[in-house]
Amino acid sequence: MHRFNHLLAMAGWDQAAKMPEKGNEARSEAIAEVSTLIHGMMTDPALSTKFRAAEDEELNEDQRANLREMKISWIEATAIPAEIVTRKSIAASKCEHAWRTQRKNNDWKSFAPNLREVVAIAREEAAMRGQMTGLSKYEAMLQLYEPGMTVQQIDSLFGDLRTWLPGLIDKVTEKQKNEAVIVPQGPFAVDKQHALSTRIVKLLGFDFEAGRLDLSTHPFCGGVPEDVRMTTRFSEADLLDGIFGTVHETGHGRYEQGLPREWLGQPIATATSMGLHESQSLSFENQLGRSRHFVKRLAPMLAETFGDQSAFETENLLKLVSRVKRGFIRTASDEVTYPAHIILRYSIERPLIEGEIEVDDIPALWDAGMKELLGIDTRGNFKDGPMQDIHWPSGMIGYFPSYTLGAMYAAQWGAAMRKAIPDLDAQLADGNWTAMFKWLETNVWTQGRRYSSNDLAKRASGETLNAIHFRRHLEARYL
Amino acid sequence: MHRFNHLLAMAGWDQAAKMPEKGNEARSEAIAEVSTLIHGMMTDPALSTKFRAAEDEELNEDQRANLREMKISWIEATAIPAEIVTRKSIAASKCEHAWRTQRKNNDWKSFAPNLREVVAIAREEAAMRGQMTGLSKYEAMLQLYEPGMTVQQIDSLFGDLRTWLPGLIDKVTEKQKNEAVIVPQGPFAVDKQHALSTRIVKLLGFDFEAGRLDLSTHPFCGGVPEDVRMTTRFSEADLLDGIFGTVHETGHGRYEQGLPREWLGQPIATATSMGLHESQSLSFENQLGRSRHFVKRLAPMLAETFGDQSAFETENLLKLVSRVKRGFIRTASDEVTYPAHIILRYSIERPLIEGEIEVDDIPALWDAGMKELLGIDTRGNFKDGPMQDIHWPSGMIGYFPSYTLGAMYAAQWGAAMRKAIPDLDAQLADGNWTAMFKWLETNVWTQGRRYSSNDLAKRASGETLNAIHFRRHLEARYL
Repeated sequence: MHRFNHLLAMAGWDQAAKMPEKGNEARSEAIAEVSTLIHGMMTDPALSTKFRAAEDEELNEDQRANLREMKISWIEATAIPAEIVTRKSIAASKCEHAWRTQRKNNDWKSFAPNLREVVAIAREEAAMRGQMTGLSKYEAMLQLYEPGMTVQQIDSLFGDLRTWLPGLIDKVTEKQKNEAVIVPQGPFAVDKQHALSTRIVKLLGFDFEAGRLDLSTHPFCGGVPEDVRMTTRFSEADLLDGIFGTVHETGHGRYEQGLPREWLGQPIATATSMGLHESQSLSFENQLGRSRHFVKRLAPMLAETFGDQSAFETENLLKLVSRVKRGFIRTASDEVTYPAHIILRYSIERPLIEGEIEVDDIPALWDAGMKELLGIDTRGNFKDGPMQDIHWPSGMIGYFPSYTLGAMYAAQWGAAMRKAIPDLDAQLADGNWTAMFKWLETNVWTQGRRYSSNDLAKRASGETLNAIHFRRHLEARYL
Repeated sequence: MHRFNHLLAMAGWDQAAKMPEKGNEARSEAIAEVSTLIHGMMTDPALSTKFRAAEDEELNEDQRANLREMKISWIEATAIPAEIVTRKSIAASKCEHAWRTQRKNNDWKSFAPNLREVVAIAREEAAMRGQMTGLSKYEAMLQLYEPGMTVQQIDSLFGDLRTWLPGLIDKVTEKQKNEAVIVPQGPFAVDKQHALSTRIVKLLGFDFEAGRLDLSTHPFCGGVPEDVRMTTRFSEADLLDGIFGTVHETGHGRYEQGLPREWLGQPIATATSMGLHESQSLSFENQLGRSRHFVKRLAPMLAETFGDQSAFETENLLKLVSRVKRGFIRTASDEVTYPAHIILRYSIERPLIEGEIEVDDIPALWDAGMKELLGIDTRGNFKDGPMQDIHWPSGMIGYFPSYTLGAMYAAQWGAAMRKAIPDLDAQLADGNWTAMFKWLETNVWTQGRRYSSNDLAKRASGETLNAIHFRRHLEARYL
């Protein structure tokens, strides 16, 4: 399965980064074929007996963790009959395809019936998963992205955020209101941005003998740990967007490159959760990337590559990369307002899948949530409101929390490494990032999936995930 | 199998063109895994019954051709027990690996025992294939590359060549002896060569929406018909080498892109033989590429891209691309001396696999053959002699004839299309190559593997393969 997944990962990367248009049909068929093969291996009924036999064997801790993860994967794969998988895939394809046009047209009315269909099947799926695992519907879906995480935990974490985030956003935007910021003047040639980003990615320790950086419409980190394929995108107008997007992917990339080699091909050599993965990209992009340490080092590289501009001075760059602005769009938002977008989505998708609310209730809930959390008026703007993300139309429900869990983990790692390495900030200020990477490598990357994310958090930072460090981080940087 | 082969083709392309160094082990394992899977499907004993049942069905001509080809593939795949495949692979890997160093050191003595091992297993393989098909050992191996071709045919074709080729080489080199030729002065930036080559490949009708052109150490044409992946290489010093190499691959690429779509996934939608494939690359590289028609069009593009040089004048370029020079190295030789290299290899590998000669006899036979065919002294020079090619160390015996069969086919197509399209040369002279491509598309590409190469030759050109057109082509161009 590990080897078939290798080919799948590379075919997927190629499809996004290299494949010409007319190759798509054959590629999709080939990917579907090997996916079916893998699914058949994962749902093999004979595994049940094998798992039972393996449990009676004498296993060391790592082997036991592997067996545990294999069983979890098997349960997840067998929970849903093929018939539902097919129905879900058809409904999601239909909804997503139509959504691409409907979103442009702000056409919630035509979108809603398709989404209803997707949600109906997602509820069926969630009910079956819940039956298999003894969890509530939403919690069962959440396990696919955040194994071991409970709804109670998320309620408590996001509840905490909700008490102070809107006030913090008020204070920060008030503080930045009269700040003068100089915007870099483009156009910035894409090949120069690519070359500069490659230089930065190298400085961030990514091993280019075991990976690549290419371009694609939607940046992602794919490939396999031995050969990590990161993609990014550059805009000639917006220089910092591409660079910080690349720094973000580099965090994902180093996590993958740092996964435990001795267990490659086994489940415990994979990432713990989506939130943990995001904690690495955000450790790079936000914890380090938007810090004075990084920006100080970036400033002369920008001037060297694109000629001197007053916008490239460290103090101005720092203002640029820590600009907070209330907006409609999640993916375009800064690290302070981003969690508000996630809390809103969670507050809708959880009751939606539990059957407590219906698709038709979404717009009103969206408007109220955005008003409360960000103080903005979204009425009638479906396009930049509940229709903005691909997640719901594609049937991916339960994923959104991972983004903000990742931000919280990243802040918690930041605090933990400062406790473990008292002169860390002095080292970082000298442009020496090794100790930071080493801490992440030891405490996160090489741990793979040996522990649940809750256990990993305790082992790495001495405490389970909480919002205190995230709050301190935001307050220290933005107030 | 078609879909798994898609992933295999893409993984192989990526390995050569994109993959970073440290990805190789995982990639090789993934490729081996899916290769084993495909081999298992190809050798499934149940196929035997299914073939028999299919023969009793009412089939149209195309379906019957598909069944015929499926059976041939099955017989080829099942002819050899897995044990021999493994032994051959190990011996070939060992021989090839050591050869990389031994060749540099001109160390025939250390190379010979490894090659003996490879040959011994190749003889076993050939004997089994021969038993299965009722053919001689060499002929049985030849079928893997040139299905339907007999040793008698090759003996006759190469025998014909042998009577006039050395004399022709004498005359041409004598004629060119005092020719003044201006060599283009580099360096020629690789990115400019890539951009120019892309322009040329487009002019040659390759569809970039269904394929790519990238760089690799050894140029090849891979991928799948829906998404053809050509690679090439450029040297800053030698401009024409890269361009003509690219034109060569474009011939392969257009053949693949032109294979019959309605049968994709079935054997008759694949290329007829290696010789037929080479006939397309040589139709592009030599028949068209080295003609006045093409060179006239190339000249201004060179000047436009790299600035004017007197070397870029059409008459001088024509001399450059039709320069004939006796040399040691097959891959570096021109279209007149190339067949001499092939005849020599055939005259050695055929008796070698039949057991009529031994590995230790090769150097003396090589020296005598090179003396006779090219009039050059190769004694003691194993490096640029019998050790120059990867084919024998890697156990690929029976492939060499394809190169020269391809050159002969290409000349025969050239003659046939001139008969079919009386004003073809006038069209070509006007820079209109459409009719030529259309002829190849109709007579070769879209025929796929419906017919054996012998039948295809008769259908396309009215006669089976012979050396007359090749001789006429060389005499017309070089005398």
